[in-house]
Amino acid sequence: MNRRVILIGAALALSLPDAFAAGPRDPRRAIEAANAEFGAAYGRGDARAVAAMYTEGGQLYPPNQGVVAGRSAIEEFWKAAMDSGVKRVELKTAEVESLGDSAVEAGTYTLYGKDGTALDRGKYLVFWKWVGGAWRLHRDCWNSNEPVRRE
Amino acid sequence: MNRRVILIGAALALSLPDAFAAGPRDPRRAIEAANAEFGAAYGRGDARAVAAMYTEGGQLYPPNQGVVAGRSAIEEFWKAAMDSGVKRVELKTAEVESLGDSAVEAGTYTLYGKDGTALDRGKYLVFWKWVGGAWRLHRDCWNSNEPVRRE
Repeated sequence: MNRRVILIGAALALSLPDAFAAGPRDPRRAIEAANAEFGAAYGRGDARAVAAMYTEGGQLYPPNQGVVAGRSAIEEFWKAAMDSGVKRVELKTAEVESLGDSAVEAGTYTLYGKDGTALDRGKYLVFWKWVGGAWRLHRDCWNSNEPVRRE
Repeated sequence: MNRRVILIGAALALSLPDAFAAGPRDPRRAIEAANAEFGAAYGRGDARAVAAMYTEGGQLYPPNQGVVAGRSAIEEFWKAAMDSGVKRVELKTAEVESLGDSAVEAGTYTLYGKDGTALDRGKYLVFWKWVGGAWRLHRDCWNSNEPVRRE
């Protein structure tokens, strides 16, 4: 390979969005980028784009209800969360274990309301899969750090 | 290898407990056996044996509190659960994804009180690792299916 081809390759790599450029070999960077994308899609109220970040057979394990299975049910779940007053989701990766085309991520989340106040803080465990050229959430389990509120 | 050696090998394999015989190549069977062992240790009030089923750096992600890290803290957590009235834990594997020396399991749990009544039902996502010749829980996240009780 001559130098020109290498330079073109480098230029192409630099122009790709992070979530793709990092690929399955660097899941931590790609998953952090995917989480930022998740937060951005959520923040603009785009439940469909959030759901598209899951695998076709993706599943949510949300607290205080049953398993939510499949993209269409996942889209409804996040739409309902938006409508209930959760306006922003912040995800922070604590660790990523790379397992080839799979990865396990643990992290923390903060949910924010309309006025920017934190509504809830908690933690999650996500099983990611590299599908269709992107890291996608396949299993997503979380819970709150806050004591149960008895109103 | 002559027939006698093969027969001795087969006899040895048959005499090993399930959780070990199944090995890293058959994680579903081994993890189901490990879950049965978890339930048995819990049922006899042996929080130390339950904690020993986690990796040294194991972590719990329990609802409504922070991360519980390390075997000694995990032992305290399960001891406190026993003391709080949860007398039996039933774990039911829904799926296991095998990833070499790692595995991701999703399943459901039921917690029982002293009189055998179900106290709580929920779901979990566990990241298992094959360490020291056994499958051990490395990350353990769960939550309840029940609506929040406002007492």
